Amino acid sequence: MNNTNKLKIFNDPIYGFITIPNEGIYDILEHPYFQRLRRISQMGMSYLVYPGAHHTRFHHALGCMHLMRKSIEVLRFKGVAINEEEENALLIAILLHDIGHGPFSHAMEHSIVENIDHEWISLRFMEALNKEFNQSLTLAIKIFKGEYHRKFFKQLIASQLDIDRLDYLKRDSFYTGVAEGNINSERIISMLNVANDELVIEQKGIYSVEKFLVARRLMYWQVYLHKTSLGAEQLLIRVLKRAKELVARGEKLNASEALHFFLNTPVTKKSFGTDVLKRFSNLDDIDVLAAMKSWKNNPDFVLQNLCNMLLDRDLLKVKLKNKPIGKKKMAAKKENLMQKYGISAHEAEYFVFHGKVSNLAYDNHQAPIKIMYKNHKIKDVTEASDQLNLKALATPVLKYYICYPK
Amino acid sequence: MNNTNKLKIFNDPIYGFITIPNEGIYDILEHPYFQRLRRISQMGMSYLVYPGAHHTRFHHALGCMHLMRKSIEVLRFKGVAINEEEENALLIAILLHDIGHGPFSHAMEHSIVENIDHEWISLRFMEALNKEFNQSLTLAIKIFKGEYHRKFFKQLIASQLDIDRLDYLKRDSFYTGVAEGNINSERIISMLNVANDELVIEQKGIYSVEKFLVARRLMYWQVYLHKTSLGAEQLLIRVLKRAKELVARGEKLNASEALHFFLNTPVTKKSFGTDVLKRFSNLDDIDVLAAMKSWKNNPDFVLQNLCNMLLDRDLLKVKLKNKPIGKKKMAAKKENLMQKYGISAHEAEYFVFHGKVSNLAYDNHQAPIKIMYKNHKIKDVTEASDQLNLKALATPVLKYYICYPK
Amino acid sequence: MNNTNKLKIFNDPIYGFITIPNEGIYDILEHPYFQRLRRISQMGMSYLVYPGAHHTRFHHALGCMHLMRKSIEVLRFKGVAINEEEENALLIAILLHDIGHGPFSHAMEHSIVENIDHEWISLRFMEALNKEFNQSLTLAIKIFKGEYHRKFFKQLIASQLDIDRLDYLKRDSFYTGVAEGNINSERIISMLNVANDELVIEQKGIYSVEKFLVARRLMYWQVYLHKTSLGAEQLLIRVLKRAKELVARGEKLNASEALHFFLNTPVTKKSFGTDVLKRFSNLDDIDVLAAMKSWKNNPDFVLQNLCNMLLDRDLLKVKLKNKPIGKKKMAAKKENLMQKYGISAHEAEYFVFHGKVSNLAYDNHQAPIKIMYKNHKIKDVTEASDQLNLKALATPVLKYYICYPK
Amino acid sequence: MNNTNKLKIFNDPIYGFITIPNEGIYDILEHPYFQRLRRISQMGMSYLVYPGAHHTRFHHALGCMHLMRKSIEVLRFKGVAINEEEENALLIAILLHDIGHGPFSHAMEHSIVENIDHEWISLRFMEALNKEFNQSLTLAIKIFKGEYHRKFFKQLIASQLDIDRLDYLKRDSFYTGVAEGNINSERIISMLNVANDELVIEQKGIYSVEKFLVARRLMYWQVYLHKTSLGAEQLLIRVLKRAKELVARGEKLNASEALHFFLNTPVTKKSFGTDVLKRFSNLDDIDVLAAMKSWKNNPDFVLQNLCNMLLDRDLLKVKLKNKPIGKKKMAAKKENLMQKYGISAHEAEYFVFHGKVSNLAYDNHQAPIKIMYKNHKIKDVTEASDQLNLKALATPVLKYYICYPK
Repeated sequence: MNNTNKLKIFNDPIYGFITIPNEGIYDILEHPYFQRLRRISQMGMSYLVYPGAHHTRFHHALGCMHLMRKSIEVLRFKGVAINEEEENALLIAILLHDIGHGPFSHAMEHSIVENIDHEWISLRFMEALNKEFNQSLTLAIKIFKGEYHRKFFKQLIASQLDIDRLDYLKRDSFYTGVAEGNINSERIISMLNVANDELVIEQKGIYSVEKFLVARRLMYWQVYLHKTSLGAEQLLIRVLKRAKELVARGEKLNASEALHFFLNTPVTKKSFGTDVLKRFSNLDDIDVLAAMKSWKNNPDFVLQNLCNMLLDRDLLKVKLKNKPIGKKKMAAKKENLMQKYGISAHEAEYFVFHGKVSNLAYDNHQAPIKIMYKNHKIKDVTEASDQLNLKALATPVLKYYICYPK
Repeated sequence: MNNTNKLKIFNDPIYGFITIPNEGIYDILEHPYFQRLRRISQMGMSYLVYPGAHHTRFHHALGCMHLMRKSIEVLRFKGVAINEEEENALLIAILLHDIGHGPFSHAMEHSIVENIDHEWISLRFMEALNKEFNQSLTLAIKIFKGEYHRKFFKQLIASQLDIDRLDYLKRDSFYTGVAEGNINSERIISMLNVANDELVIEQKGIYSVEKFLVARRLMYWQVYLHKTSLGAEQLLIRVLKRAKELVARGEKLNASEALHFFLNTPVTKKSFGTDVLKRFSNLDDIDVLAAMKSWKNNPDFVLQNLCNMLLDRDLLKVKLKNKPIGKKKMAAKKENLMQKYGISAHEAEYFVFHGKVSNLAYDNHQAPIKIMYKNHKIKDVTEASDQLNLKALATPVLKYYICYPK
Repeated sequence: MNNTNKLKIFNDPIYGFITIPNEGIYDILEHPYFQRLRRISQMGMSYLVYPGAHHTRFHHALGCMHLMRKSIEVLRFKGVAINEEEENALLIAILLHDIGHGPFSHAMEHSIVENIDHEWISLRFMEALNKEFNQSLTLAIKIFKGEYHRKFFKQLIASQLDIDRLDYLKRDSFYTGVAEGNINSERIISMLNVANDELVIEQKGIYSVEKFLVARRLMYWQVYLHKTSLGAEQLLIRVLKRAKELVARGEKLNASEALHFFLNTPVTKKSFGTDVLKRFSNLDDIDVLAAMKSWKNNPDFVLQNLCNMLLDRDLLKVKLKNKPIGKKKMAAKKENLMQKYGISAHEAEYFVFHGKVSNLAYDNHQAPIKIMYKNHKIKDVTEASDQLNLKALATPVLKYYICYPK
Repeated sequence: MNNTNKLKIFNDPIYGFITIPNEGIYDILEHPYFQRLRRISQMGMSYLVYPGAHHTRFHHALGCMHLMRKSIEVLRFKGVAINEEEENALLIAILLHDIGHGPFSHAMEHSIVENIDHEWISLRFMEALNKEFNQSLTLAIKIFKGEYHRKFFKQLIASQLDIDRLDYLKRDSFYTGVAEGNINSERIISMLNVANDELVIEQKGIYSVEKFLVARRLMYWQVYLHKTSLGAEQLLIRVLKRAKELVARGEKLNASEALHFFLNTPVTKKSFGTDVLKRFSNLDDIDVLAAMKSWKNNPDFVLQNLCNMLLDRDLLKVKLKNKPIGKKKMAAKKENLMQKYGISAHEAEYFVFHGKVSNLAYDNHQAPIKIMYKNHKIKDVTEASDQLNLKALATPVLKYYICYPK
């Protein structure tokens, strides 16, 4: 029962209409690997804090493709030659840049598999699709890997001011309702240019870049690293960890076939072949949520409680500090819990724990954001900004959190 | 591990901030029965057409509560006495009016249980919560049932221009990106008043009411009854139907405990007691999606294909017609399918079927929307509108659909 | 001191960016005839009711040009051939369609000159510009006059669903803050097509057209014909009338040179030559406002009071009725005023008067809005709409107003 | 003919509805002194760059009053006692804080009168109104002067994060379409509090304050000090200067009575009595625009050309530099002009000139913006911000401009 009705347009509350540029891309969109992104939330568990934040990786990918088209239009208008094959490859590369995300996006990036980041898995998906679609993704893959000779192509996909960020900041700000994170993607794109094969922002765009960096920083501390989301994410990681522990002990846990596999099998880059990719493609938010709904009645005190906390949003207390958490405090909280519920120290550590988070608003080890002056001179934005001390943004901000039961 | 941190404010992309009015309501929000609404999508499967439409019943309920507060403020300002107890009851009643929805909201209203609508179940939930919370919901329940002596209270909760509609039209328009469905809830609320104990709209609001009715009509045909959503919803209903059929035949199907129960047990109003309510409260979108993810590999041709179609968005072709579908056409499509896949007529009917949908933009059998003139005369809006023939909107529009494989 | 710096982009709060398509059009924009539109408010005196409504004809003209470009893009995409010369002419025609407006747009259309509408004057401006710019406007003029062989060209400029309306409804709704008048111009444009050389809307756009008609109707009664604006506009007309009367009597009134001319000289189509055009081009809102600021101290009771009323927003009382105003009531109000201020009946009539306004939401004597079905059949929208009785919108709604001092 | 119809609500495209809180304030709004603000543009000549920027001081004042009400609500909710008389005074003070602006707001602040800023004139207006309205503005005046014992009252009216800035940044961003200047006034207000009688922002608002400062900085360089606006403003100042020069020489210039007075009479604080206030109240944008429309035909080469440049938007070339402009360059440009048009050096200086502009994003000599931590400690925002080097914002940025004919 194959689909011949080629859908052309998506409604997007943010950009109005998103048009599918051609049949090749349409076919990728239709593939189950891509449709799966409909079941992976863009912002993990953030909806526990921002109830509107239920948008998906699917929608973000479409948005990115849309902004990439706008960017190519702008660059061509300014005389940067981009041929049709290159355009198509850029669109595919941005469309699939996040396809390797597992359940709840970043939240579980290191719980399902070990030491494998989502970009690496994205590449595996792209290679698999390339086989299915007669090598038509070859150039997209080359760009994605940064192996294409035109350097700015990769920068459009992944850099400190890439299409990805232009969409996700705008989109996440929109769906959370945190209006201050809103950025003017359209204006920033209108000021893109290429010099010496590198992406640059024209001089008059400097205030927009400043604003973009400050908005991103705000979104990190106010949304992405919001202490409640952070706490929920940590619980989610511990649910998986506990489940693996129980499985390792020989306990039988209800779980989908795909989730079962990953609970039972440590997966490394080495063991991640075609079969694992197939299994991974069957895994999404639903598997984890359904498992938690079953496990909330599991006799194991830890697993049961972790699941109930997340499902009923009865979360741990979270404190965010500028200094490391004292050991004494931790010990007391843990001791208290052990006595109250008669659980072991190991078990109590699932509910009392600490850690740190950091955010780097601007990374001056990565390729800098470059500003091009009217006289064609080029400067790093941290030098171009006449006053706002952007260099300061290049120092990571570190915060320490502690979580424990209320 | 009980929660003492009383969250006060929600970010809402639509209204800005939504404040929780008091601790009693806060406690209801915290209850697992209410938190469950986070896992029930407001618009069923509409996200297959409008990728932004992932908002939930939870969010809609909060929005309704917010608009109810605004309405009470407006009415009080105009001299309508509403005491604190009444205010609290109105807020609770609107907050819980949809709590009885099952998975995918309306989509499965008649698949999980039989001849029970969600309002009836909402009432069961309210009664259960009333017990838990020391009878503090008694007045809310009275209002919800329409038994309170002040008639307009019920009209705020359920009528042709109620708070429910004012929120869902605005919210659904926002998340789908169908900007034309947007209504100006704030303005309509600012023109609410009460006359002879009935809700009325002040004269100058007549064009806003017209526009509300036309927007609602547009949302029905363009969104709620969009042929692709319609087709998807029908598939979803058939997934459940087939599953019940197989279970009845003795086949074993993977499903969560709660879903198992409803697949195995026909539930009527009579048999819907405390135990069933408890089980129902464990059922949400996740159970159905997880089941489909398992069933897509079920050996049964019908179940397997229905699930794959929905999960991979490889849907049936749907045509919407003004006239009933001819029998011959149906028969030919069915015959074709039977031969192609070697399946029975009964099985083919899961993929080739027809039906009808109707929409009544304005129902003149229900309580009419009343317009109050400056001289305090009151007219039904269909008479007050000087020209736009709103009476015509009181004739149901009927459309016929046919679905079959591409 | 001629200008070589060719400005390329305008910021528009509504569409984001408006780009000037070419140098020829840039030169027209720079011409003093066009720059004058910066001093003519789009909505006359409506800002006395909606304080945000200070946008100008200049901005509306730019917006129209922008939407025309979008429309041409859409039509070309659907295979409608429009060559570059035609495109340019369409852009110029829409840009200049309103250039003939005098001070306060419609408000004074029949006060400054006699029996000449603004379209006629627009044509004179276009002809004058055509001379200056080496006949490069010839095709635009032909289209504007409806003499070009491709019928739909004129329909884009002036019809019941033209670019003009798509911009002004959206823009006026935006600046007044009457959100309900907002229409989805982008969506309507995306559904434009051409059949038999006529502009049509594709079938799925039918609800958007309904909504457009209802929004337009709402804007008429709630904004354009708002009783307070209406009253202010009538005062403005009377200011000019009284001034002409006084001038005819030989009184000397302060006024700009251009305004002087029109106060002294009855201008008809016949006498409207190059010299008059030049003088007309020097006339804008400023001349009238400055005159009123001077005349508010004029010894003439009538002129003085009319001017003060408008400048200090101390307006007449206005009532809007469904039935004609009774003569007795009028006479009594007038008598009262004559006695109170010792003025003549003629003078009193400047402050006590009545009249009527009408609005035709859909004009079925003009070319109808046509809907094109998937099978390429074409129907008038009043027949296509399955239920909303749009025919009713073709009956003019008539209202009667009376104005008198508070 | 006095007005008894007490208008209650204004439509505002930004905040939705603005309600007039009481009759006393209504009467102030109705006063010709306040209505005059309808004819004073908020952003001077910025509409020559941003065509949507035609909003007025009238609208800004209403917006401020609205935000003040919201702020009072928030503060009271947090337990800060503000009685009704105080509330009323705060509302009046913010409503009238800018009433002393002359034509084109800041643009002509030092052209019409000498060494008198608009706040000083606002105070004169407030005193005059106080007399008319039976001393009902006494407390408002006390607050405005900073003489009320509650220190934070003045901070709400005028400080580095006052209601004025919260409205104008939002409003100017809205009307110019420079979306990046948008700030979330609602959120900032929700985080206001009072500690030790001083206005503070709660800790979680720190990123919003950062964003506010960066948005303000962006608005300065991108909008308020946009080189084209800057050039236009300088021309406007020179129009007045030249007119005064000609008048001093005995030439007769057309001008309104009010403008005549200020051209002929040097006005200082000392000479600014009741009579001057009355005359000043008759002066607004219209007087200046009407004069320019007349003067564009004046035989004086300088006056004529300056006026034409502004009216037809045929402006000087403007360059913005980080270093002072070289004397040689200036001399050459001037020489060139003198020869081309046979004008004197003095005359040429009207068209060739240079100057500097500066912006101080954060002024640490003024009262700092204070952040209140959960433990009630208070820090200056420049110290509280963990990373963004806000101290850097306290160094003024200086730029140099040069203007000369194209």
